[in-house]
Amino acid sequence: MLLESLRAEVLESNLELVRRGLVLYTFGNASGVDREQGLVVIKPSGVDYDDLRPEHMVVTDLNGKIVEGNLRPSSDLDTHTLLYREFPTIGAVVHTHSEYATSWAQAGLDIPALGTTHADYFYGPIPCTEPLTDEAIAGDYVHETGLAIVRRFRANPSGSTSQAAVPGDATHAASAGGRMSPDPSGFAIDPLAVPACIVAGHAPFAWGRTPHEAAHNAVVLEYVAKMAYRTVTLQAEAGVSQSLLDRHYFRKHGAKATYGQK
Amino acid sequence: MLLESLRAEVLESNLELVRRGLVLYTFGNASGVDREQGLVVIKPSGVDYDDLRPEHMVVTDLNGKIVEGNLRPSSDLDTHTLLYREFPTIGAVVHTHSEYATSWAQAGLDIPALGTTHADYFYGPIPCTEPLTDEAIAGDYVHETGLAIVRRFRANPSGSTSQAAVPGDATHAASAGGRMSPDPSGFAIDPLAVPACIVAGHAPFAWGRTPHEAAHNAVVLEYVAKMAYRTVTLQAEAGVSQSLLDRHYFRKHGAKATYGQK
Amino acid sequence: MLLESLRAEVLESNLELVRRGLVLYTFGNASGVDREQGLVVIKPSGVDYDDLRPEHMVVTDLNGKIVEGNLRPSSDLDTHTLLYREFPTIGAVVHTHSEYATSWAQAGLDIPALGTTHADYFYGPIPCTEPLTDEAIAGDYVHETGLAIVRRFRANPSGSTSQAAVPGDATHAASAGGRMSPDPSGFAIDPLAVPACIVAGHAPFAWGRTPHEAAHNAVVLEYVAKMAYRTVTLQAEAGVSQSLLDRHYFRKHGAKATYGQK
Amino acid sequence: MLLESLRAEVLESNLELVRRGLVLYTFGNASGVDREQGLVVIKPSGVDYDDLRPEHMVVTDLNGKIVEGNLRPSSDLDTHTLLYREFPTIGAVVHTHSEYATSWAQAGLDIPALGTTHADYFYGPIPCTEPLTDEAIAGDYVHETGLAIVRRFRANPSGSTSQAAVPGDATHAASAGGRMSPDPSGFAIDPLAVPACIVAGHAPFAWGRTPHEAAHNAVVLEYVAKMAYRTVTLQAEAGVSQSLLDRHYFRKHGAKATYGQK
Repeated sequence: MLLESLRAEVLESNLELVRRGLVLYTFGNASGVDREQGLVVIKPSGVDYDDLRPEHMVVTDLNGKIVEGNLRPSSDLDTHTLLYREFPTIGAVVHTHSEYATSWAQAGLDIPALGTTHADYFYGPIPCTEPLTDEAIAGDYVHETGLAIVRRFRANPSGSTSQAAVPGDATHAASAGGRMSPDPSGFAIDPLAVPACIVAGHAPFAWGRTPHEAAHNAVVLEYVAKMAYRTVTLQAEAGVSQSLLDRHYFRKHGAKATYGQK
Repeated sequence: MLLESLRAEVLESNLELVRRGLVLYTFGNASGVDREQGLVVIKPSGVDYDDLRPEHMVVTDLNGKIVEGNLRPSSDLDTHTLLYREFPTIGAVVHTHSEYATSWAQAGLDIPALGTTHADYFYGPIPCTEPLTDEAIAGDYVHETGLAIVRRFRANPSGSTSQAAVPGDATHAASAGGRMSPDPSGFAIDPLAVPACIVAGHAPFAWGRTPHEAAHNAVVLEYVAKMAYRTVTLQAEAGVSQSLLDRHYFRKHGAKATYGQK
Repeated sequence: MLLESLRAEVLESNLELVRRGLVLYTFGNASGVDREQGLVVIKPSGVDYDDLRPEHMVVTDLNGKIVEGNLRPSSDLDTHTLLYREFPTIGAVVHTHSEYATSWAQAGLDIPALGTTHADYFYGPIPCTEPLTDEAIAGDYVHETGLAIVRRFRANPSGSTSQAAVPGDATHAASAGGRMSPDPSGFAIDPLAVPACIVAGHAPFAWGRTPHEAAHNAVVLEYVAKMAYRTVTLQAEAGVSQSLLDRHYFRKHGAKATYGQK
Repeated sequence: MLLESLRAEVLESNLELVRRGLVLYTFGNASGVDREQGLVVIKPSGVDYDDLRPEHMVVTDLNGKIVEGNLRPSSDLDTHTLLYREFPTIGAVVHTHSEYATSWAQAGLDIPALGTTHADYFYGPIPCTEPLTDEAIAGDYVHETGLAIVRRFRANPSGSTSQAAVPGDATHAASAGGRMSPDPSGFAIDPLAVPACIVAGHAPFAWGRTPHEAAHNAVVLEYVAKMAYRTVTLQAEAGVSQSLLDRHYFRKHGAKATYGQK
């Protein structure tokens, strides 16, 4: 059996998504690549996580041609293989419909970098792709999904701010991979410095150098997406309602306080 | 004992609702229909889920007349049987007060189709019924609840946009049942293409071809209702607060950045 | 040992609050009353729920004088006993700082009756008390908390709408207790028809005819508080952003659709 | 081995954070100080919580010099030791990226004191630091984080309301530590009366007299942060939508009611 060790890692990465609550039923898949052999190991489609065994994993080449395995690979295979071909530094890809990251994707918004939890893993906002066109959707949809991700990393959408690609001090982002030097491939965003993307109207993809790291990044992505949701809704409300906060504060403190300790 | 296999399926469908957290105490019920015999199997009313056994299920005809069983059937029986009579393609019905779908029902709003998780199961918005009239509430309330659902599928409420009933490309919705061809019964919305409805001021009903599928659809309905809630609140705030997002972004990036890596 | 059966019921009621996630650490307490003997059984203060045994329960008279027990009773005892004296039809009281009901209490807002889940248990909004005055807080605080609750049921706050006390058709509320007839004690809100109140800036109290029912009502109160929070925030946003919903809808449907199936 | 008892307490405090869901992966750390010996016991960096044993704890002096232990201490050590040096009354420090407290930190807002759950532990708002400057971030970042916290307790930020430091009646706050007398060290906020701070764009720190108390305070901080989030968002919406609440109310009650019991 080919790639026994990578099969086990990819399986474990799939199970980590389940343990962390990122996956409902069979929504989600993980894969890994062996760069030397040019082979991809990916979860089969629609098998219950409880039943998954290393031997169920499907092995394909970098164009998605099945090399070993009797089961059909994940229906998102073509997105995975495109990412492996276009992002030469990554070693594993994870796709989920995790709740908060998907909500940002459905809103069509980048997840802003609002704190150090985010910055520890992602050097800048998590980009959201442009919506797919009618032609892309009617065409090779899964492949087009990968293209939309790649476009977002090669260049920013028109009208948007350019993202810092060459940081001078990578203290925080180092743990995410540390590949902070100017990218020779001409990426606007280094895929290892921002190891995730959300697809507009769809859901997140995350990646890393190993299956373990890709799953870990997907879990942290969901965590920062959740806190970003709360930060943005909180701040918008608090902006509207500073007078409300003041009213509460003075209700409890000072000469006219009507609450709590006198 | 009649319909042993269907009893087991209906029981399992009820238990799936509990396992997935859709049910508090005894809020919720599932049923299935045997079309050949014209018999319905439904959960008894108010029995703890821990104690439910196949022999507790109640068997009725399509008008709700009890054919076998000593326990009282679910108090929502008349909604279930009406749906079986009016939607000839469905084989099972599930009712819950699951948190997010019920919140949309209480808000009196259709759950908009905001992403592929939704589109994988529901071909268009999950419709919300019109509020019941005083007469309907004072009358045959449970039956009227079913009528409100059926009206919503037979025609859209006045002033609303007509929904696509005859899609040309059913890639995504196929997994929901695939009955995408023009509906000979004259439905505005095909009940198998959109296998759920939320009742205004009440809660969701979902259905499918089998008890397993109906429960599965109810679970996914709750999941998409949750993500739709977050998408709508996020997007409304973000629209209000684009300047806020900008301020955060520039606080962290560019010449005037005051946050994170220099 | 006095009241062995009631001790067991009160203990079980306390544990139900923990099982349902309504209690953090030792926040929360339940009690029951024996009307014939005029004795109250209440949880002791600050004992871990894991260690609670029936013999730890404290027995007091209706004025809070300890009759049996070596442990100090819950610090909220005076609120419980006041409710027993003022609401002659109730048999048990529960207090928690459950998350959503407390958030409504902190907001100082009644929990509106937005759906049938609410109406199945509470015949009208869950009232929120007026804020306590400086004098009340500096005075007999726990007793004053009870008075604020009782005032809310005896009369509505000035300027507010009077609540229906004499419903003609109690179909839904029947399961909450059913005492729908005109209240001879002159309550504006019948305590058994609306078996809960939230104390402004504090948290909820719930009650019922038995300890089991009081805990059950507290659990449902938290559930309806949660759904009311989401309904109100959703509807406010959706009102702001109907154009947003429309944009989404038309992005996915009709001639100019750019999403999903063509 | 030095400080066996304190090691066990610090370990237990770290594990309590995990049990209460405040920690994802290895985000979070707790420490304790032995004031007589001037020694700090702190969690090692990046060790899985499942594998943590008392002997893994690292012992340092009050300047962070390692006295005993083979593992690297938590990377936040310099914040912990600074707090021990500057806040002489505290005996333990806890740091987490717990979801709601971190969301408030990311929003850059104090957590307002909105109810008695808060007041039982924190005598006034949980202060949020000023954002760190470029120089602080590029400099001794972890130390600067501690300085930002200390500055917030020594004096309020310009333009803000002064906080009550000398309450006359400490009924509620007593359980948080009770050190309510005028602080001889000249703090604007007594660190034992408000035993937590959130660092802008980062996350919370909490403390107490013992490791047990510090972890307990961190858990309650997250709980009150969660309820404050909901209170503020609810109240802002409800302010916007009082007419909405009215509409619901009258839909269900009075002569024109269209909902529920007639």
